[in-house]
Amino acid sequence: MKQNIDPKLDLVLERHAAVSPALVWKAWTNSKHLSQWFAPKPWTISKCEIDLRPGGKLEFVMRSPDGQLYPNLGCYLEIVPNERLVWTDALLPGYRPSAEPFFTAVLDLAPDGKGGTNYTAIAIHRDEDGRKKHEAMGFHEGWGQVYEQMIEFIATNKL
Amino acid sequence: MKQNIDPKLDLVLERHAAVSPALVWKAWTNSKHLSQWFAPKPWTISKCEIDLRPGGKLEFVMRSPDGQLYPNLGCYLEIVPNERLVWTDALLPGYRPSAEPFFTAVLDLAPDGKGGTNYTAIAIHRDEDGRKKHEAMGFHEGWGQVYEQMIEFIATNKL
Repeated sequence: MKQNIDPKLDLVLERHAAVSPALVWKAWTNSKHLSQWFAPKPWTISKCEIDLRPGGKLEFVMRSPDGQLYPNLGCYLEIVPNERLVWTDALLPGYRPSAEPFFTAVLDLAPDGKGGTNYTAIAIHRDEDGRKKHEAMGFHEGWGQVYEQMIEFIATNKL
Repeated sequence: MKQNIDPKLDLVLERHAAVSPALVWKAWTNSKHLSQWFAPKPWTISKCEIDLRPGGKLEFVMRSPDGQLYPNLGCYLEIVPNERLVWTDALLPGYRPSAEPFFTAVLDLAPDGKGGTNYTAIAIHRDEDGRKKHEAMGFHEGWGQVYEQMIEFIATNKL
């Protein structure tokens, strides 16, 4: 479904990529690729598991420069190849409600008609506090930085 | 995805219906039908809205015999016609994490090879307390009763 955005509750990152939706999709949906670019450097991804189907697992562990580990576990909700990827931490794999729901993420990819991609990432929160907390954690900086890392990863690795 | 069941956390209702998966599907996915049988009598459904797509709304209001209203709001997650229906109250329509997540429901329908349906309803909870609470609320009695009401509704209305 087309995502309705509520500016009080949601955060949005929009970019225009010179690479195709298919390449962006590949970078996002293969754990070997995702783990290479999804943490804003000098952070790294120390574990990444993807079971790409509705209700399937998305798990990753972010590692800070001093070695602290930040685990994330959720599940995929919608998978429309090269177009739309939705996942949430409000549900664990198999759709079990989670103990600490924070947000649902939507990645929308649209061809720009010239071989590139109109790229939109949306973070959907339960309430205004959730949105503000995520904003203060650096949503725009972090998601903006990993977007750049993804573009570089695609170029360097000739996906 | 095939649902893994954890007996500590999940509740399961299994029945064999003499009617086809297609008729059960029809009774479950049309708001005019669902509102006729989904509340255990003498309770009723005073409002029912269905937007049958992933992320789409499922809203219904249960009305007790003395007129108390109990609203429910969630969204659909998986829709495989005549086979599998998944929805949750952990996410509001559009996948927004909800303030009071309680459970995810899975309805699995399988043809029995003789025109009937092997019917499985699963309630998936966050923790053991959630499962126990739902059990004490009368999950087996309630879902069992509305199953019988559904069968009667299908027969009476020649769906």
